Amino acid sequence: MSSSSSSHDGLSRRLLLGVAATLPMLSGLLATTAAWAQTAAPLASWNDGPAKRAILDFVRTTTDPASRTFVPPEERIVTFDQDGTLWVEHPIYTQVMYCLDRVPDVVKAKPELAKVQPFKTVLSGDFEAIAKLSMHDFLEIAAATLTGMDVDAFESETKAWIAAAKDHRWKRLYTELTYLPMQEVLQHFRANGYKTFIVTGGGQDFVRVFSEGVYGIPREQVVGTAGGVKYGYGRDGKPFLTKEPKLLLNNDFAGKPEGIHLMIGRRPRAAFGNSIGDREMLEYTKGGDGARLSMLVLHDDAKREYAYGPAQGLPDTKVGRFTQALYDEAKKDGWTIISMKNDWSRIFAFEA
Amino acid sequence: MSSSSSSHDGLSRRLLLGVAATLPMLSGLLATTAAWAQTAAPLASWNDGPAKRAILDFVRTTTDPASRTFVPPEERIVTFDQDGTLWVEHPIYTQVMYCLDRVPDVVKAKPELAKVQPFKTVLSGDFEAIAKLSMHDFLEIAAATLTGMDVDAFESETKAWIAAAKDHRWKRLYTELTYLPMQEVLQHFRANGYKTFIVTGGGQDFVRVFSEGVYGIPREQVVGTAGGVKYGYGRDGKPFLTKEPKLLLNNDFAGKPEGIHLMIGRRPRAAFGNSIGDREMLEYTKGGDGARLSMLVLHDDAKREYAYGPAQGLPDTKVGRFTQALYDEAKKDGWTIISMKNDWSRIFAFEA
Repeated sequence: MSSSSSSHDGLSRRLLLGVAATLPMLSGLLATTAAWAQTAAPLASWNDGPAKRAILDFVRTTTDPASRTFVPPEERIVTFDQDGTLWVEHPIYTQVMYCLDRVPDVVKAKPELAKVQPFKTVLSGDFEAIAKLSMHDFLEIAAATLTGMDVDAFESETKAWIAAAKDHRWKRLYTELTYLPMQEVLQHFRANGYKTFIVTGGGQDFVRVFSEGVYGIPREQVVGTAGGVKYGYGRDGKPFLTKEPKLLLNNDFAGKPEGIHLMIGRRPRAAFGNSIGDREMLEYTKGGDGARLSMLVLHDDAKREYAYGPAQGLPDTKVGRFTQALYDEAKKDGWTIISMKNDWSRIFAFEA
Repeated sequence: MSSSSSSHDGLSRRLLLGVAATLPMLSGLLATTAAWAQTAAPLASWNDGPAKRAILDFVRTTTDPASRTFVPPEERIVTFDQDGTLWVEHPIYTQVMYCLDRVPDVVKAKPELAKVQPFKTVLSGDFEAIAKLSMHDFLEIAAATLTGMDVDAFESETKAWIAAAKDHRWKRLYTELTYLPMQEVLQHFRANGYKTFIVTGGGQDFVRVFSEGVYGIPREQVVGTAGGVKYGYGRDGKPFLTKEPKLLLNNDFAGKPEGIHLMIGRRPRAAFGNSIGDREMLEYTKGGDGARLSMLVLHDDAKREYAYGPAQGLPDTKVGRFTQALYDEAKKDGWTIISMKNDWSRIFAFEA
């Protein structure tokens, strides 16, 4: 690991964080992935208001053949950011927790790393020291935990972790921390012939492991930050692919519309995000002809989830920044803001 | 254009050709894309034999819930090479014809090119001289005709060309030169819950323009050689993407399984190809657990289409080489060879 041009499944930006990172306990229970139960009325967990109406109106007017803004089935593409848009991203991205959790196994395979930084610090469990690691340190951790292995091995490791690891606030599987109102949005679009895609700054291979079970989104409809893979043959002559520490697609900021072109090949009709990393995707979506919908989730509910901006006087953050400039652009260009506090009557499926 | 590491929508390999390239006449007729009429019996244009049986058996045993080799719906991925597997690739790839045809328009926009090689030669219409152009010349033509423009402009240009340009032997639209038996294979897989993907060494953006109309394959299910795109804003402030002369994915040889991982994220259950550029895709497919199917189209019908190998004593070629080593590997590893001459009762839909 030598330079900032290297990539590790899209962690470069998120690992720039100064936030406290805590090691989650690995649950001994092999829990099954949380499935979301569909309700009869569309957007049942949404309060009546401009955000709910914007979604219902858009879907109705683009799928009614008599509508002036009808969209033919093959053009019905809707994209969703993941972290902070479909599930919780605070206090730190779930994939970062995965990387930190993987360090003990990496050290087991290469014992010499135990005495080397930054692995020594991660193994110490000293949360304050971990939070102070540099970006270079985090990139080294990401390279060690996300690359170098067979893609099938990576999938097994990720699958086992995501089925067991729990967050610290709710003591729930990370996959239970998806927003019920957004699951309803996914369902409503799909029920009306839209193809739903995740377009995430997170690692494509990481998210693909659980996208089908958690969101009903097949892995080929996940666009994320992607590293190269290398084709080779095992000792048994069988072919396999190895994850390489080489960036192919940095799927964040302008990389999102670029990734959408690469992986989907069509400008989305609608897009959902929550931070400055989603700005270009929302601009690109709204910039097309005909009916277009761009929406931003504003985390303004400190009580039920988290509150961060710094838009609208909310506390600043390094994880999922939503600036006032983004807020102003949204207002000016006709994007719709979703207030988590006001628009969502329920946030998680596990709530009573 | 400076080095061989540059890319231009995957033409690098195909432009290495020494074959004669002729400029097609641009038809004045705006023809609609040829639609393939589905027949009631699966694989109706196939003669009974091991190839037809291999496909029918594979589909049946992987989709019957009582079968030992049942494949769950989300894993039903089948990939198809395009050139030489789904449509005619001789005497030269259709995309090369597109590039040559675009030269007059490129020169119109930049008149200074008219006096510069290789554009001067292409404009001369001297077929023998065009056939002698070097790889560097062809890369320069590809860069000039496939990059530098807005992705939407490229789409319009390609769409207009493919709707009008005709081949020289049959005087048919290129899109009519798809193999009817392979269209039946696509249909049969889809009718049984398989998702069909094109995995081509050709340009991803090029093939996506007609994949939906010609093959029923949505553009997001086309994996091809891909260049980078760059996000920017027009004078009106509207965002757009520009095609750049920068290679992201060279989707040929080992690049095929690598591209499959990047774009699909799952090892295919079945794969179809016809040349050495498909070898690694077929190996990777066959190398997975459970039921797998790898098949190769052998062009051994000089009368109805073309005959080339050099496998099995067929004439050698630079376009879609099928070597004896590939033939031997197929026999050894249980891939099935499709003899165009013996297995297909009909090749094109337009035949009586």
